[in-house]
Amino acid sequence: MSAQINKNFLNISQSYLFAEIAKRIRDWQAANPEHASKLIRMGIGDVTRPLPETVVEALVKASREMGVAETFHGYGPEQGYDFLKTAIQNYYTRFHVALEQDEIFISDGAKSDIGNILDLFSVDNTVMVTDPVYPVYVDTNVMAGRKIIYAYSSEENGFLPMPAPEYKADLIYLCSPNNPTGAVYNREQLTAWVNFARDNGSIILFDAAYECFVTGDLPHSIYEIPGAKEVAIEFCSFSKKAGFTGTRCGYTVVPYALKRDGADLNHMWLRRQTTKFNGVSYIVQRAAEAVFTPEGEKQINENIQYYKDNAKIITDTLDRMQIFYTGGKNSPYIWMKCPGGMKSWDFFNDLLEKAYVVGTPGAGFGKSGEQFFRLTAFSTHENTEEAMRRFERIYG
Amino acid sequence: MSAQINKNFLNISQSYLFAEIAKRIRDWQAANPEHASKLIRMGIGDVTRPLPETVVEALVKASREMGVAETFHGYGPEQGYDFLKTAIQNYYTRFHVALEQDEIFISDGAKSDIGNILDLFSVDNTVMVTDPVYPVYVDTNVMAGRKIIYAYSSEENGFLPMPAPEYKADLIYLCSPNNPTGAVYNREQLTAWVNFARDNGSIILFDAAYECFVTGDLPHSIYEIPGAKEVAIEFCSFSKKAGFTGTRCGYTVVPYALKRDGADLNHMWLRRQTTKFNGVSYIVQRAAEAVFTPEGEKQINENIQYYKDNAKIITDTLDRMQIFYTGGKNSPYIWMKCPGGMKSWDFFNDLLEKAYVVGTPGAGFGKSGEQFFRLTAFSTHENTEEAMRRFERIYG
Repeated sequence: MSAQINKNFLNISQSYLFAEIAKRIRDWQAANPEHASKLIRMGIGDVTRPLPETVVEALVKASREMGVAETFHGYGPEQGYDFLKTAIQNYYTRFHVALEQDEIFISDGAKSDIGNILDLFSVDNTVMVTDPVYPVYVDTNVMAGRKIIYAYSSEENGFLPMPAPEYKADLIYLCSPNNPTGAVYNREQLTAWVNFARDNGSIILFDAAYECFVTGDLPHSIYEIPGAKEVAIEFCSFSKKAGFTGTRCGYTVVPYALKRDGADLNHMWLRRQTTKFNGVSYIVQRAAEAVFTPEGEKQINENIQYYKDNAKIITDTLDRMQIFYTGGKNSPYIWMKCPGGMKSWDFFNDLLEKAYVVGTPGAGFGKSGEQFFRLTAFSTHENTEEAMRRFERIYG
Repeated sequence: MSAQINKNFLNISQSYLFAEIAKRIRDWQAANPEHASKLIRMGIGDVTRPLPETVVEALVKASREMGVAETFHGYGPEQGYDFLKTAIQNYYTRFHVALEQDEIFISDGAKSDIGNILDLFSVDNTVMVTDPVYPVYVDTNVMAGRKIIYAYSSEENGFLPMPAPEYKADLIYLCSPNNPTGAVYNREQLTAWVNFARDNGSIILFDAAYECFVTGDLPHSIYEIPGAKEVAIEFCSFSKKAGFTGTRCGYTVVPYALKRDGADLNHMWLRRQTTKFNGVSYIVQRAAEAVFTPEGEKQINENIQYYKDNAKIITDTLDRMQIFYTGGKNSPYIWMKCPGGMKSWDFFNDLLEKAYVVGTPGAGFGKSGEQFFRLTAFSTHENTEEAMRRFERIYG
């Protein structure tokens, strides 16, 4: 008898993507000290605008409440306070999605829930991810020893893989608007996935972390698709919506209608969370509530518009240069084809050396990214404009 | 092919303890409206004193920083900011425990980490818990399908079970000061457990959530015991120390020296956390840092002393009445023998009906609690005094 580790951990591939990028930048800076100050980072996956004033005031007010016995909050409900669940419930009615309050679970972020939800499923389940892929979907399943199927994508399908017999899997990850491609499934496409899941008894794990960038008739939530409540769990976050990447709040929707093997997944998730989680800070939940006030919405929309304006600077340039891309219109990510048929790491080097601009090589997100490159809208207007000027001058 | 649930969830027993207590109180209130206002709750497991002023000021300052671009914080390190890890590292030197900064991982609370740490271990591992037990140790392992061995305790061993051949297990949970018994292992006893783990290749999961109540020469940390770094993971929390039950911050220590099957558990936990967690709110980490400032320490010690004074009111009464108990001196919990050989639920009813006082029946924590009862120090001085006056009048 001796403690044994979970040997599946040994199968997780080390991600060298961002470490390798950092190393190449350091090497370049050392070799080119005279240009170092001109470096522009367009690979940033984190927001850069501060928290809106309304959110800060909510944080301050809640912090002060915690210092007074009469308004102090100790343990809260593991699944979140009703005041925040009500605000989210109301938000969903805009997309004509009716949720019960207890179908919504507040968490410290979508990444935690996307990983922890797997506690609910058998390790014998097969998993499908679209490629290129947010690495967390893969690593969390490798950790548990599940078999993974990849749905590859390309220019031909607009980086939006559609159901096919060979993609039959028990758990299907969809991210729309997508990280890293920025591509968004329309209603018809998402309906095809929901029907595919219904036909095969699959469960869709729908990552809606970027839904706030969606415009027009594109779906914000998978529950806008009829029948989705029987087959889908949805994850969302305040990170990109309201700049909460360092404040930490998200939510997960597990509909009552989602049942398997005679078990109710909403109840299973409640049980998981009450056993392995103790709820999100009261202060942070009050801040998240403020996001939905009229003043809060106005302020967060200004920030989202700021990032969208950056995205437009990028897509206008690519349009002029007739370079293929996805994203940018309903997403902070722009997934562009590397100019001149370059491979993504070659283009990374070329862009750094000639334009002093950094992005993310598509190969880092999977095989389908070999000739693609991710730019993000999280820089300043000035830097985005300057980066695209240099880009057009060199590759135009 | 069809999504299958993790069937181990069906084996988790529903806990009716606190629901049953709430129901009995409601029934009593309905039947005794004239006495309802005299009810005193001595079963509270949550702090009641507000956050210290220094902590509130740190929350407010950090909240304001988040509203300004120059001081805004986006994604932080998943394992926590260095400023907080440094403060914790320094705290451990008081117990002559030297930790590397990256042996410390900041989290949203001990409960999350105690559950999530199990990702690192094979489901074939056998688990030992001491009985009475904090139910989370049991439920998280039932969820994963692990076999559980119980080390029962009693008045004879002072509710401090010691190693025995039949307790050999891969993973050993120890909680000291204990929830629910308040009993604390001394240096010699903890050394016996560390040696037992070393001899058997076991790993000790040491829950130190109540270490701030420890006085004298009793160990705060398992790492005060020679050789513990090779066999133990330690979990701690700001919940009881600084009133963070609703603010959410804790930390876990995974020493570099802890290795199994050629794998480094520190690295595995880092990998787990970077994949399934995104760090604790910057604001909350600044608040936790403030706990270790001289002014912060002074204020939290006043709160801890307040709870200790309540505990003394309880233990002085029990001493006078010559009733056996554990805890109270180095713990906010007092685990008392029910008077007159009553069973714990019978005593619960009796105490409620005669004294209008509520506590927690020991049977709710396991077989060893059948004739015991948990009182907590988290009430006010006034209510604690009044409750014990009534208790002494009735059972004295």
